[in-house]
Amino acid sequence: MKVLGIDTSSMATSIAVIEDNKLICEYTVNTKKTHSQKLMPMIENMLMMSDLKIKEIDMITICIGPGSFTGLRIGMATAKAIAHVNNLPIVGVNSLEMLAANMDLCDKNICSVLDAQRNQVYTGKYSFENGKLTELCDVDVVEIETLIDELSATDEEWIMVGEAVYKYEEMVNNTKNICIPQPSHNVSKASSLCSVAIDKYSKNIDVKDCYTIYPMYIRKSQAEVQYDEKMKRLNDGK
Amino acid sequence: MKVLGIDTSSMATSIAVIEDNKLICEYTVNTKKTHSQKLMPMIENMLMMSDLKIKEIDMITICIGPGSFTGLRIGMATAKAIAHVNNLPIVGVNSLEMLAANMDLCDKNICSVLDAQRNQVYTGKYSFENGKLTELCDVDVVEIETLIDELSATDEEWIMVGEAVYKYEEMVNNTKNICIPQPSHNVSKASSLCSVAIDKYSKNIDVKDCYTIYPMYIRKSQAEVQYDEKMKRLNDGK
Repeated sequence: MKVLGIDTSSMATSIAVIEDNKLICEYTVNTKKTHSQKLMPMIENMLMMSDLKIKEIDMITICIGPGSFTGLRIGMATAKAIAHVNNLPIVGVNSLEMLAANMDLCDKNICSVLDAQRNQVYTGKYSFENGKLTELCDVDVVEIETLIDELSATDEEWIMVGEAVYKYEEMVNNTKNICIPQPSHNVSKASSLCSVAIDKYSKNIDVKDCYTIYPMYIRKSQAEVQYDEKMKRLNDGK
Repeated sequence: MKVLGIDTSSMATSIAVIEDNKLICEYTVNTKKTHSQKLMPMIENMLMMSDLKIKEIDMITICIGPGSFTGLRIGMATAKAIAHVNNLPIVGVNSLEMLAANMDLCDKNICSVLDAQRNQVYTGKYSFENGKLTELCDVDVVEIETLIDELSATDEEWIMVGEAVYKYEEMVNNTKNICIPQPSHNVSKASSLCSVAIDKYSKNIDVKDCYTIYPMYIRKSQAEVQYDEKMKRLNDGK
């Protein structure tokens, strides 16, 4: 079974194909060029270099967020389009779980972080139990200081994964039970996305199609916040 | 400092650029298409997608082997050519250490394996000590049964990393203290190569240039074996 993974939830565009126990190809570009400029040319080049046709793909997995609103929509639209044309299942994976899967088979606990601006991070906590990535709590958005205080109050060792960690590097480095992975492991990777999705698919968890898959937004977009405020003012008769 | 990593030691062609603590791009194609068909077009496409010019690269790292003779020479020739034109340092990393770096921050011991044919594997043993990848013994070529017996006789947990593990999967799965990573982590990746090389460069270990870098061959090539046999016959007057 060939699984195409697509992630556009952060600045990185990452795509990969895994077939059974083999990573066939993976392509990650982590620059400010927009996802709409990068995603389709990268898919085209990667499939061509790998002698694969899009018709050969059996399942799509997409990172559903949390993350960049525009990024998520570009990835989601692309995944839905391919799944619609070829009638494929889509498995959604959240961005924090995808990041945690970078630390395959680690014994330490894993805390994934994504920048949520305003001194906050999106975060999720995971560990590998009998070789399987396991969620320890729901995805949340918290102040970075609160999160670091919480982790440092535990008796356990933590890996904090995700590029957002560099924004708070000094604070993290001063906390003795938290360590930061190598740059090679600290960015969203579609191969990790595929790993998580293949496990979910085997358990029939989060298996959707092009009509039923949706992004995961933790916060409302700025446009929605403004719209709600406007409607409230109108309803209040102001 | 921008580091370009090139690996052609196995079937996978993998390239990446890391700058400081950021993975800028990575491209891996693990198919039977030859390295000479894949490598330069992949470098060209990846740099173009990442808005990078080859002139901006400050250091090259190349996987020196052990591995495919032809593959190593294609990668080595390419790395030497780029380093020669732009007068860059080259850091050589062996293929087993590169594979071990896929398991960043693991507490278990790591045994990397590459298929050496004739029921043998190239192997190296590593662990992360204070977050740094550390070699536990020299790279070797051994019978797979000998290696598995040796690991199972220890009291420690091992991760056996490298696609060669699938060739002996049943034997490995029957050994309770050895586990196999996800497919996402079980192939040579140039981002892991860059991670190892950046650490070596910072300690001034294995820093070479286009004239002094050489592949690491554990065994002689078939042509060399035949040549040696022929010379021996001639010298013996047969």
